[in-house]
Amino acid sequence: MTAEKARPDPPRAVVLLSGGLDSATALAEAVAAGFLPSALSFRYGQRHAIEIEAARRLAERARVERHVILDIDLRVFGGSALTADLEVPKDRPGAEMSAGVPITYVPARNTIFLSFALAFAEVLGSFDIFIGVNALDYSGYPDCRPEFVAAFERVANLATRAGVEGTGRFRIHAPLLHLSKAEIIRRGTLLGVDYALTASCYDPSPEGLACGRCDSCQLRRKGFLEAGAPDPTRYS
Amino acid sequence: MTAEKARPDPPRAVVLLSGGLDSATALAEAVAAGFLPSALSFRYGQRHAIEIEAARRLAERARVERHVILDIDLRVFGGSALTADLEVPKDRPGAEMSAGVPITYVPARNTIFLSFALAFAEVLGSFDIFIGVNALDYSGYPDCRPEFVAAFERVANLATRAGVEGTGRFRIHAPLLHLSKAEIIRRGTLLGVDYALTASCYDPSPEGLACGRCDSCQLRRKGFLEAGAPDPTRYS
Repeated sequence: MTAEKARPDPPRAVVLLSGGLDSATALAEAVAAGFLPSALSFRYGQRHAIEIEAARRLAERARVERHVILDIDLRVFGGSALTADLEVPKDRPGAEMSAGVPITYVPARNTIFLSFALAFAEVLGSFDIFIGVNALDYSGYPDCRPEFVAAFERVANLATRAGVEGTGRFRIHAPLLHLSKAEIIRRGTLLGVDYALTASCYDPSPEGLACGRCDSCQLRRKGFLEAGAPDPTRYS
Repeated sequence: MTAEKARPDPPRAVVLLSGGLDSATALAEAVAAGFLPSALSFRYGQRHAIEIEAARRLAERARVERHVILDIDLRVFGGSALTADLEVPKDRPGAEMSAGVPITYVPARNTIFLSFALAFAEVLGSFDIFIGVNALDYSGYPDCRPEFVAAFERVANLATRAGVEGTGRFRIHAPLLHLSKAEIIRRGTLLGVDYALTASCYDPSPEGLACGRCDSCQLRRKGFLEAGAPDPTRYS
């Protein structure tokens, strides 16, 4: 028996991978915690489809077991600046950004994403789902709050075969939940995340350059500044 | 002011409409409860795509406000006889049907469906979602149990703009939850459901005739018999 064979198989995890800074860090956390990750990304009619390419590069770099990219058309419902033909807000000061639910909120998006991750996990025989939500910088998004994550974990354990048969317990890991953007960047840098591969901008140029002015770009830029880390983002 | 204009607008509801007997009855319950329904159906790579045509007919008959048919490819994950190339079980006695989770279970299906219904409801400004799940005849499906429905209702209220802003409370209505198939048929008949428009078979012929032998056909046939109602199903 070789040393490699004697090592027990690592448990599998499903990582929701948008291609942004947060999900790239969540993926690194899953690997650091000893999981064999599979990644799940979505093409949902978002304007920033450039993120999918970023997700592909990140998944490849992390040597994920499987990377599934799902097409779901959230545009049929309308109702968000990320999927409908609304203007992405630019140059908003911090106070305005954190007031209320932003118009870039996509209705029930994280609920939908976690539901698919649950299906994927169930098929893979995995009980661990990683999501890069974060309650500090995005306090306006209802589905980025700890109570939402806990409630979904409860659903996961009631909705599934394992829940009925008692063969395992699902955990929704949200390792970035209570971190600031700067703390996320410091943590990810420590774990070896190459942030040059990530894409965060809500309104990138056709060549994939970040606008530098939307809420997401502003938070990201401020994060690198506060973390004292070089910002590898290519701005237009 | 005309009498019609004086009447206040009915509240909107989203009804998950598969085209089967149960969801047709749930739609009728939404109408009977005074809601203006919109319907949501899914093409998810299921073998019984004939259900979509049934959903279309039912939505038209009920004069729904909007009927959205979403394409989501659950086949990418695999893992169910309804979406993968597995045999649909036939001629199983009742005891065998109710033992454990059936292989026709689609991983996390109702969680995914409810998540999209939540997005649709949020865009419509509706707080009421109807789903035709039923815990008696399908005790093997984890996501047809009352505790699952309650847990998802909690997620709905934490995941959404309304949950943060406190402008309303989502309710997941599962009016068939504790009814037997015969009771559902009796109730639907009372509400004027035309069951000839519905399709339940897991493995219909290319012409859309029901096999009469899968679990779903058997439960349906027994339901009509026990309800003392004529069975309008066209069997092959």
